[in-house]
Amino acid sequence: MRLSLRPSDSLADYPFVHRVRTRFAETDAMGVIHHAAYVPYLEEARAALLEWLGHPYEQVRADDGVDFGVLELSVRYRAPLRFGETVDVGAAVGGLTRATFQVAYLLAVDGTPRSTAVTVHGAVDRHGRATRLPSWLAGAALRAGAAPADGTR
Amino acid sequence: MRLSLRPSDSLADYPFVHRVRTRFAETDAMGVIHHAAYVPYLEEARAALLEWLGHPYEQVRADDGVDFGVLELSVRYRAPLRFGETVDVGAAVGGLTRATFQVAYLLAVDGTPRSTAVTVHGAVDRHGRATRLPSWLAGAALRAGAAPADGTR
Amino acid sequence: MRLSLRPSDSLADYPFVHRVRTRFAETDAMGVIHHAAYVPYLEEARAALLEWLGHPYEQVRADDGVDFGVLELSVRYRAPLRFGETVDVGAAVGGLTRATFQVAYLLAVDGTPRSTAVTVHGAVDRHGRATRLPSWLAGAALRAGAAPADGTR
Amino acid sequence: MRLSLRPSDSLADYPFVHRVRTRFAETDAMGVIHHAAYVPYLEEARAALLEWLGHPYEQVRADDGVDFGVLELSVRYRAPLRFGETVDVGAAVGGLTRATFQVAYLLAVDGTPRSTAVTVHGAVDRHGRATRLPSWLAGAALRAGAAPADGTR
Repeated sequence: MRLSLRPSDSLADYPFVHRVRTRFAETDAMGVIHHAAYVPYLEEARAALLEWLGHPYEQVRADDGVDFGVLELSVRYRAPLRFGETVDVGAAVGGLTRATFQVAYLLAVDGTPRSTAVTVHGAVDRHGRATRLPSWLAGAALRAGAAPADGTR
Repeated sequence: MRLSLRPSDSLADYPFVHRVRTRFAETDAMGVIHHAAYVPYLEEARAALLEWLGHPYEQVRADDGVDFGVLELSVRYRAPLRFGETVDVGAAVGGLTRATFQVAYLLAVDGTPRSTAVTVHGAVDRHGRATRLPSWLAGAALRAGAAPADGTR
Repeated sequence: MRLSLRPSDSLADYPFVHRVRTRFAETDAMGVIHHAAYVPYLEEARAALLEWLGHPYEQVRADDGVDFGVLELSVRYRAPLRFGETVDVGAAVGGLTRATFQVAYLLAVDGTPRSTAVTVHGAVDRHGRATRLPSWLAGAALRAGAAPADGTR
Repeated sequence: MRLSLRPSDSLADYPFVHRVRTRFAETDAMGVIHHAAYVPYLEEARAALLEWLGHPYEQVRADDGVDFGVLELSVRYRAPLRFGETVDVGAAVGGLTRATFQVAYLLAVDGTPRSTAVTVHGAVDRHGRATRLPSWLAGAALRAGAAPADGTR
């Protein structure tokens, strides 16, 4: 496992926060948001983070000729989300290597943590082969990095 | 609306039946399968129908160079589906024009109708432009056509 | 089919417009938003419409003791949606009977129609039996009704 | 993190294998199965595993009065899945505590590993409070346990 980030429980530790509203279609028969529905929340927050960094994902694909494939995913479910709730998804970049980077997430409602997550991404070229990260990502990691307290394991 | 097929309530009227098992992820907070989850069931039955006709969808895309875009969709929800149920999805082709065809569906559990649906499809080339249907579809419509009783409106 | 509304092509005809942003998770291998993903967009717009009318869906379930089941769904796909687009979903209530109502939708990007849709809903009580619509819905239909031009078929 | 299982790369190490067929609706604009779609595959395999153990999930909810909430999820994506592929999902139970258990998974196509995953589950009663695991799970873990080689970290 490449996963090394440890997401903070405090939104204040995240340089970027994206809001999502839960959908009824995402609920399940237990009456809560189904655990699979969190994964698109993370992706939506990640896309918004890239946009905020000045590198929208469509542009990364077009200009840099790379896709950021998902290599690993880890989610901790701490308290359920419910239909109609507004979720603050904090996101922070970290753990860069030559070809991979990580994003740490906190999902909180009214400041209360509901879930944390980490994704690991690899740059792949148009033929699906691993390739170097675009050079702007190093700067992005400085600007959108997690607060030092989060650290790495 | 191009939609003209009237799906039969009897599985016996369908030349092809595909089975799907409902997933817990597809339930919602009302305790039943969410209405949006039916749409992939229809698509899965349609793909299995094309395969049964000797023209798997991947091959249609590769050999004929066409995609079958969805132009219209209509679903009637008559009785809910529940988690763990095995659903027989009857499918029949009909309503061919130069560039479009329709599929009628019945979703039944133990022979009891739960839902009916119709989709209208158009052939599009690699540039997304409407194009003629592949010639094998006329024969397919004979082989996989709905029983005459279903008729058209 | 109970479906009788004919959705207008102009956002100006809708009393309420809800914005959604398409997600990468909703794309498919044709490079566009998958047709099944539109169904939760409609539902999200419908929930926002109820909220705007002062009757959030959670409250309808709690206070009125009714659920609004989906009885019918019809979608016309006219031009594809793509990842990262912001979609204006116009929604209008109409076609009320004692136990059912309809919602007409227009999905547009920068004012250009991409899709129209209609859903038919029935009030059901806690035991899943059809029941009368809550009385506030008649007023809601006046306030959130489609412009007369849309009419009924 | 409670996650301790290390999924084996060989299907032979799994006491139970469930087959799923990928759906077109699950593809994304990269032309492969979207990473969020794996999560329902795991759940479907888990439900089939419980059924095979003689304790279908619906029955667990009804008879034992417990739900198995998902506490943690971890997925490694090693090679993409594509539309139309048949995926063997190996599943093995392990890591039992008083109130939690884990499931390890291998997703393979024609014996080649595409992904591995682990989920951690907690028993919760009807009020959503953590409760003891049903007693049959200890036996199930013996019968459906991972081969010793998988071990724990």
